[in-house]
Amino acid sequence: GDFAKVDHHRALRTGFPEVIWGPGKTPDQIAQIMEAMRQRNSVVMATRIEPDVFATLETKVQGLRYYNLARICAITPPTIEPQYPGTIGILSAGTADLAVAEEAAVTAELSGFHVQRLWDVGVAGIHRLLNNRHVIESASVLIVVAGMEGALPSVVAGLADCPVVAVPTSIGYGASFGGLAPLLTMLNSCAAGVGVVNIDNGFGAAVLAGQIVRTAYKLRK
Amino acid sequence: GDFAKVDHHRALRTGFPEVIWGPGKTPDQIAQIMEAMRQRNSVVMATRIEPDVFATLETKVQGLRYYNLARICAITPPTIEPQYPGTIGILSAGTADLAVAEEAAVTAELSGFHVQRLWDVGVAGIHRLLNNRHVIESASVLIVVAGMEGALPSVVAGLADCPVVAVPTSIGYGASFGGLAPLLTMLNSCAAGVGVVNIDNGFGAAVLAGQIVRTAYKLRK
Amino acid sequence: GDFAKVDHHRALRTGFPEVIWGPGKTPDQIAQIMEAMRQRNSVVMATRIEPDVFATLETKVQGLRYYNLARICAITPPTIEPQYPGTIGILSAGTADLAVAEEAAVTAELSGFHVQRLWDVGVAGIHRLLNNRHVIESASVLIVVAGMEGALPSVVAGLADCPVVAVPTSIGYGASFGGLAPLLTMLNSCAAGVGVVNIDNGFGAAVLAGQIVRTAYKLRK
Amino acid sequence: GDFAKVDHHRALRTGFPEVIWGPGKTPDQIAQIMEAMRQRNSVVMATRIEPDVFATLETKVQGLRYYNLARICAITPPTIEPQYPGTIGILSAGTADLAVAEEAAVTAELSGFHVQRLWDVGVAGIHRLLNNRHVIESASVLIVVAGMEGALPSVVAGLADCPVVAVPTSIGYGASFGGLAPLLTMLNSCAAGVGVVNIDNGFGAAVLAGQIVRTAYKLRK
Amino acid sequence: GDFAKVDHHRALRTGFPEVIWGPGKTPDQIAQIMEAMRQRNSVVMATRIEPDVFATLETKVQGLRYYNLARICAITPPTIEPQYPGTIGILSAGTADLAVAEEAAVTAELSGFHVQRLWDVGVAGIHRLLNNRHVIESASVLIVVAGMEGALPSVVAGLADCPVVAVPTSIGYGASFGGLAPLLTMLNSCAAGVGVVNIDNGFGAAVLAGQIVRTAYKLRK
Amino acid sequence: GDFAKVDHHRALRTGFPEVIWGPGKTPDQIAQIMEAMRQRNSVVMATRIEPDVFATLETKVQGLRYYNLARICAITPPTIEPQYPGTIGILSAGTADLAVAEEAAVTAELSGFHVQRLWDVGVAGIHRLLNNRHVIESASVLIVVAGMEGALPSVVAGLADCPVVAVPTSIGYGASFGGLAPLLTMLNSCAAGVGVVNIDNGFGAAVLAGQIVRTAYKLRK
Amino acid sequence: GDFAKVDHHRALRTGFPEVIWGPGKTPDQIAQIMEAMRQRNSVVMATRIEPDVFATLETKVQGLRYYNLARICAITPPTIEPQYPGTIGILSAGTADLAVAEEAAVTAELSGFHVQRLWDVGVAGIHRLLNNRHVIESASVLIVVAGMEGALPSVVAGLADCPVVAVPTSIGYGASFGGLAPLLTMLNSCAAGVGVVNIDNGFGAAVLAGQIVRTAYKLRK
Amino acid sequence: GDFAKVDHHRALRTGFPEVIWGPGKTPDQIAQIMEAMRQRNSVVMATRIEPDVFATLETKVQGLRYYNLARICAITPPTIEPQYPGTIGILSAGTADLAVAEEAAVTAELSGFHVQRLWDVGVAGIHRLLNNRHVIESASVLIVVAGMEGALPSVVAGLADCPVVAVPTSIGYGASFGGLAPLLTMLNSCAAGVGVVNIDNGFGAAVLAGQIVRTAYKLRK
Ligand SMILES: Nc1ncnc2c1ncn2[C@@H]1O[C@H](COP(=O)(O)O)[C@@H](O)[C@H]1O
Ligand SMILES: Nc1ncnc2c1ncn2[C@@H]1O[C@H](COP(=O)(O)O)[C@@H](O)[C@H]1O
Ligand SMILES: Nc1ncnc2c1ncn2[C@@H]1O[C@H](COP(=O)(O)O)[C@@H](O)[C@H]1O
Ligand SMILES: Nc1ncnc2c1ncn2[C@@H]1O[C@H](COP(=O)(O)O)[C@@H](O)[C@H]1O
Ligand SMILES: [Mg+2]
Ligand SMILES: [Mg+2]
Ligand SMILES: [Mg+2]
Ligand SMILES: [Mg+2]
Ligand SMILES: [Mg+2]
Ligand SMILES: [Mg+2]
Ligand SMILES: [Mg+2]
Ligand SMILES: [Mg+2]
Repeated sequence: GDFAKVDHHRALRTGFPEVIWGPGKTPDQIAQIMEAMRQRNSVVMATRIEPDVFATLETKVQGLRYYNLARICAITPPTIEPQYPGTIGILSAGTADLAVAEEAAVTAELSGFHVQRLWDVGVAGIHRLLNNRHVIESASVLIVVAGMEGALPSVVAGLADCPVVAVPTSIGYGASFGGLAPLLTMLNSCAAGVGVVNIDNGFGAAVLAGQIVRTAYKLRK
Repeated sequence: GDFAKVDHHRALRTGFPEVIWGPGKTPDQIAQIMEAMRQRNSVVMATRIEPDVFATLETKVQGLRYYNLARICAITPPTIEPQYPGTIGILSAGTADLAVAEEAAVTAELSGFHVQRLWDVGVAGIHRLLNNRHVIESASVLIVVAGMEGALPSVVAGLADCPVVAVPTSIGYGASFGGLAPLLTMLNSCAAGVGVVNIDNGFGAAVLAGQIVRTAYKLRK
Repeated sequence: GDFAKVDHHRALRTGFPEVIWGPGKTPDQIAQIMEAMRQRNSVVMATRIEPDVFATLETKVQGLRYYNLARICAITPPTIEPQYPGTIGILSAGTADLAVAEEAAVTAELSGFHVQRLWDVGVAGIHRLLNNRHVIESASVLIVVAGMEGALPSVVAGLADCPVVAVPTSIGYGASFGGLAPLLTMLNSCAAGVGVVNIDNGFGAAVLAGQIVRTAYKLRK
Repeated sequence: GDFAKVDHHRALRTGFPEVIWGPGKTPDQIAQIMEAMRQRNSVVMATRIEPDVFATLETKVQGLRYYNLARICAITPPTIEPQYPGTIGILSAGTADLAVAEEAAVTAELSGFHVQRLWDVGVAGIHRLLNNRHVIESASVLIVVAGMEGALPSVVAGLADCPVVAVPTSIGYGASFGGLAPLLTMLNSCAAGVGVVNIDNGFGAAVLAGQIVRTAYKLRK
Repeated sequence: GDFAKVDHHRALRTGFPEVIWGPGKTPDQIAQIMEAMRQRNSVVMATRIEPDVFATLETKVQGLRYYNLARICAITPPTIEPQYPGTIGILSAGTADLAVAEEAAVTAELSGFHVQRLWDVGVAGIHRLLNNRHVIESASVLIVVAGMEGALPSVVAGLADCPVVAVPTSIGYGASFGGLAPLLTMLNSCAAGVGVVNIDNGFGAAVLAGQIVRTAYKLRK
Repeated sequence: GDFAKVDHHRALRTGFPEVIWGPGKTPDQIAQIMEAMRQRNSVVMATRIEPDVFATLETKVQGLRYYNLARICAITPPTIEPQYPGTIGILSAGTADLAVAEEAAVTAELSGFHVQRLWDVGVAGIHRLLNNRHVIESASVLIVVAGMEGALPSVVAGLADCPVVAVPTSIGYGASFGGLAPLLTMLNSCAAGVGVVNIDNGFGAAVLAGQIVRTAYKLRK
Repeated sequence: GDFAKVDHHRALRTGFPEVIWGPGKTPDQIAQIMEAMRQRNSVVMATRIEPDVFATLETKVQGLRYYNLARICAITPPTIEPQYPGTIGILSAGTADLAVAEEAAVTAELSGFHVQRLWDVGVAGIHRLLNNRHVIESASVLIVVAGMEGALPSVVAGLADCPVVAVPTSIGYGASFGGLAPLLTMLNSCAAGVGVVNIDNGFGAAVLAGQIVRTAYKLRK
Repeated sequence: GDFAKVDHHRALRTGFPEVIWGPGKTPDQIAQIMEAMRQRNSVVMATRIEPDVFATLETKVQGLRYYNLARICAITPPTIEPQYPGTIGILSAGTADLAVAEEAAVTAELSGFHVQRLWDVGVAGIHRLLNNRHVIESASVLIVVAGMEGALPSVVAGLADCPVVAVPTSIGYGASFGGLAPLLTMLNSCAAGVGVVNIDNGFGAAVLAGQIVRTAYKLRK
């Protein structure tokens, strides 16, 4: 329809195809955009899809798969293998940050990257992180997801020999102000080498991490 | 003068005498209040005294001493010995946080407490903190001072078996917003047992830490 | 499950076991964490549990008790006696602040402390506070809970000879901005000796107050 | 000049003549406006006049008087007697709030009202206020000036049988955010009957208090 | 119950009895407080009572009356006559501000004051206000209620020869930020003589206006 | 130099040449850019030029003229005549808003438009505006400049039969928050047909007003 | 009823009749105002009407039409032809901004203007915009609607030779803060000639754009 | 001294040595830290060094070099050659953003990376960017620096096939709020693959970009 101009060249230009952002679109609009995109892409993704929206979409779009922790739905080939070397390590500070961390993980996997997950290693029990330093050491790039005070990326960046993508989450209450607190924490990190994305933006973190791995891949050729 | 009603009973009521806050007062007003207070207290303190204000005060008040890192001036007895058991451990994240950390340290010492300082142990190099765990372990109460992202109190509180008083500082720039970033970080700490005071309020942190030690002292009797 | 790394050493390190924060977790996740924790702790607590979540939890976890005013559920021994000397006095400014004040009170009691409650003594009728000064005077540490303008901790700290833990609440409307108003009030208190915790964080206030009593207890030995 | 349209009817319409606000005006502009206003008014006032601006104004405008604590300059008759019954009581929480409190006091006196001052009675030492209840009881209207946490108006309004005008000041630091903290405190006062004016607006408080006394005066006729 | 300490002396001290603020209280708590208050007061009021809460209250408290536009319920004598001279004029800028304006009007009437209403006279059609100047001129005190940009009180205060109480409302959207926009507008009014209350606080405005009329009444005796 | 890429096509594309924004540039950089632009434009302007910067520029760039109230310097032909029909009416609320209002006026005049000024007609004395309605009625577009509460554009837009460009200024103090208050006021205007520009942005207002007149001019051909 | 004073002269004064803003009004109030307005206007509009409100209105007001994407309902003549020359071009950055863009489009069409729509041309795929430059070039005025980072108006204003009205939307999440992010972006546009309206205010943008076209129309006569 | 604990292992752990942040340190402290670091590092850097601080440092530390546009001083070997393959492209939106862009460029060069600069290509003249697409296409990673509305990174990320590091600057005024506006713009970018650092943090951007190149380098081996 006229309501959307799918950016079919995006994958050529930037390496990543357009991805549909669900909120504010009707299931009908999402379905139409998916159909248009499936003509040209082997993977078609939509993010921020609540279960009830998926239930409707499923009846309109064939072969749709739902990643419920990540709230992502996608048209995919039967199996998806990593197409790039290296590993994207994804850490979350708390159990409640999982939805965002999974949005990052699933986006990265559907985009052809290898992912290693490490959940619930927040700074209040720092040994949980220190005992898992191999995850930090073996990653090519790290995505660190944290709500509340959002201190984890600073500690990780002080230990890591690779880029760190920090994702603040809206998990918390009171003076968290919807994720403002961890966002500011991450922007003010005294450990350099940290790039921050929007609150709850697991998707954007995965694309950035993917771009980093792809850069490596291109340079190496 | 009429401009001030010194709260002479405060030491009796709360255990701590009134302390003069310098900003917004003329040197003359400060000198008059100091003279009034010296009648009844062995130690008379004023905080936030810039060097040039001290230079004037010195000519008006006899026996005044200046703690330049802490920007405190005080009338004191010749020597000040700790009057309470236990130790107040004071940690700072960066070198630039020193003025606030020293305000806390000098206030505590002038109030009769024993202080142990540990400077520049921010989370970007977490081993600096972990290598000094004896300071954390031997304190009765900890004051943790940090600017920029303010993550240090969370990590410390996850290691400490005592109360933690967190002091955000205005050290930083940009999205620090004058100390708002570390303030929110500390309020949202996922480690429990942390009490927060105002940005740059080393003085208040010392009084709170002192109250904690005094409570212990009273209970023990 | 992989979604959580329970910090079993926390009680050893800090004196307080980990406590489950309910929001953002499924009842299943909460139940699994509770079962894991009950292996090693005599008391297992979860906060911010709404009645309907409790109804589900009850069917999954045996011997669960619900403190409905405090929105806390817990596995406890049949009776809980104070294990520490002294008293934690808890004051609330208004009737509407009760949920937060009770979160503090139940947390403290389940952690082995003796609690004295004093509700609805806000500053608009200051005699209600002045007539109950014995509560202030007999406490080892005070938790003061207030929404709206949050002025109560300042007045109490001016009267008390012990540490004051201030808890702003989100009770209010308009320019309260979800508790920002009382939070700022408490941080700017002209009475020293006040430590502030997050908006509505009765739990954190209780842990801090508990740490203070424990410090006293340790020093006294 | 064209740069100003003096509102000569304002005194007729509202009972109070226009008053010149100094900032952003050159001394020349201020002097010209004063000369224009003196044709029709027995008292001509300008607020927010720093000493060096006054030094210049003095050379341009005859018979100018300076109230240095209040930073007000004015052309006045030789003596100014109260023209209205009743008393405007003005309270300040701290010594540092004096400039604002005096702006209110001088504005009220120059406008023909009787003023009673009570300085430095902040809530951290509540007995200082309670010992001076006669000031509260004998006033027709109260102006309460406070910085930092700004809790004084709530306590006063709970004791007073008359309207309370609350003036937040920018005195404080850190999380005071230039007076935002006491402003929010006063707006959220749980004691009803409090009207708030802008941060540091002693002038506006005096005009409002004056309107209140004039209303009384008009009704009584 | 223990959950509330009714301030029975408030009417004696301040001229106005305590009024129950509904949010955050159970119907049971509200009913119990009402019964306790009816022993000593001829009028007992509760504000912010939604229709469904009233439906429950009605079954518990005898003789309860509901003012649905104002969301107030009250126990009252059969008829309520003004007990004070003068008139409280109440103006609203838009139709959508009615709930707040009526909260002010009903509070004032139940407290014994005479009220004159003038609705929907916002500044976008200034003639609507100018054509009703008699309302402004005949009032002893004015309450001006406005959302969106909140400009009405400034215009009114430039015309009125009496105190103006300004009430910002949360009516609006986007950059209104829940009423912050009109709140700031009113605080920065270039017309002096305006006292501001909290966003949507029609109740507080009425109490302040009532105090002003009572002051007049007392002075006149 | 490499430091600047002058957008020489801008006049062709948008009808207005690039204008130099002074802050953050050295006088040398400004001078070089001016020399580059004078090759192709008959008028070359720089805004936000303080007197001392102009003093230096004058020695480097020939034929430079300074508009001191507007803080603009420019290279211009000897005389500048309006090149478009119609009038841009410019109103200011207070005397202190003059610098911003003059920035708008001089920009418009140097760009070839006819300007009519009307200063100091703020809403606190609404007759000053109503007595000058001919200015509103004869304009093709209005620029309305106001600080403090910024209410003037709403009132003007309710009277005007043409587009209104609203300019908030940073004139004010306290809860003006550097112009945030009038900015929000203008964005929330209940009178439609108002376009808002940045705080103190007299320049941008003039370009927008100019575009409006040029559109008219183009349509008419 | 008394609750509304319809500003019947507004069309005469400003060229646009009053339009009913739905929120905060009962369907009954809306219906009564519509009936009052239909006496004097050929088109009567109400904005922000949700489907369920329309369902009720339909039963009360005859001949009502609903524009569901725009959430506008209106009484209109059978056909509406453009009454003015020129075209209002309306661009949206994303599909999710459609509701706001349609509010602008329908308001403009019902007010007698010719509209050209261009949806989903956000800056992440700039060629979508550059390929449609004819829309920019043929418009007399442009309305540019964008959420998230709101960068589109800056790019458009750098290409357009006509006024640009920028509308930030609340589409986005996290650090969008309800539309604050695109609002600030648009206000700080480095491209001059941009007037900003409130977040989501498609209606206001259309009235401003309409005023611009009408000005052109008047000047041309 | 005790005031600093240089993190000598940082280069080993993270690939980048500690860098001294100048503000809040005395020249003496900076000099001492530099001397300590030169023992172990071939390059020693300090950022945010104003010219007068450098003048003092120069007399204390031998062989110090000053990069005045970047406000960086450093001890370096005679020549510094790139040690890594690939290019870090650095773009600035305006001339006034140069200081921040140069902080990034000099940091990167001193750290052994190859840099390509492209200044003054902001979105208001989009052809300036499109005409220089070779810079975007040949970079391994891009740093994009922008103040005011900060829209450049979104446009660049929509064109680039590599990671983008976005740096908001404090250049602007009014509703820029010290760089908050471009910060929010960048965080809300609808183009994915953008990592944001603190306002004015050219240093951090360079370290992050460097980590990205180093990752590529490590993966390629
Ligand atoms: N979860 C997400 N967070 C942020 N951006 C997203 C997300 N999912 C998709 N996007 C981006 O949103 C844009 C789609 O916007 P729209 O035109 O409204 O569909 C695409 O450019 C995507 O790259
Ligand atoms: N311009 C800068 N912006 C942000 N961080 C910096 C900057 N320059 C140095 N740093 C970091 O600041 C920290 C030094 O803090 P301090 O202990 O106060 O010297 C180091 O970890 C550096 O990596
Ligand atoms: N200290 C003050 N604070 C607030 N408003 C003031 C103050 N002094 C004078 N005013 C008001 O400011 C207005 C003058 O504004 P202007 O036209 O800029 O001189 C008058 O209406 C005065 O009533
Ligand atoms: N969507 C809208 N956004 C902003 N203002 C509107 C909108 N729709 C109508 N209005 C204006 O709101 C005013 C009506 O306010 P009220 O008296 O509450 O009905 C009128 O002046 C309309 O011009
Ligand atoms: Mg956990
Ligand atoms: Mg350091
Ligand atoms: Mg109560
Ligand atoms: Mg004092
Ligand atoms: Mg209306
Ligand atoms: Mg004036
Ligand atoms: Mg799209
Ligand atoms: Mg440029």
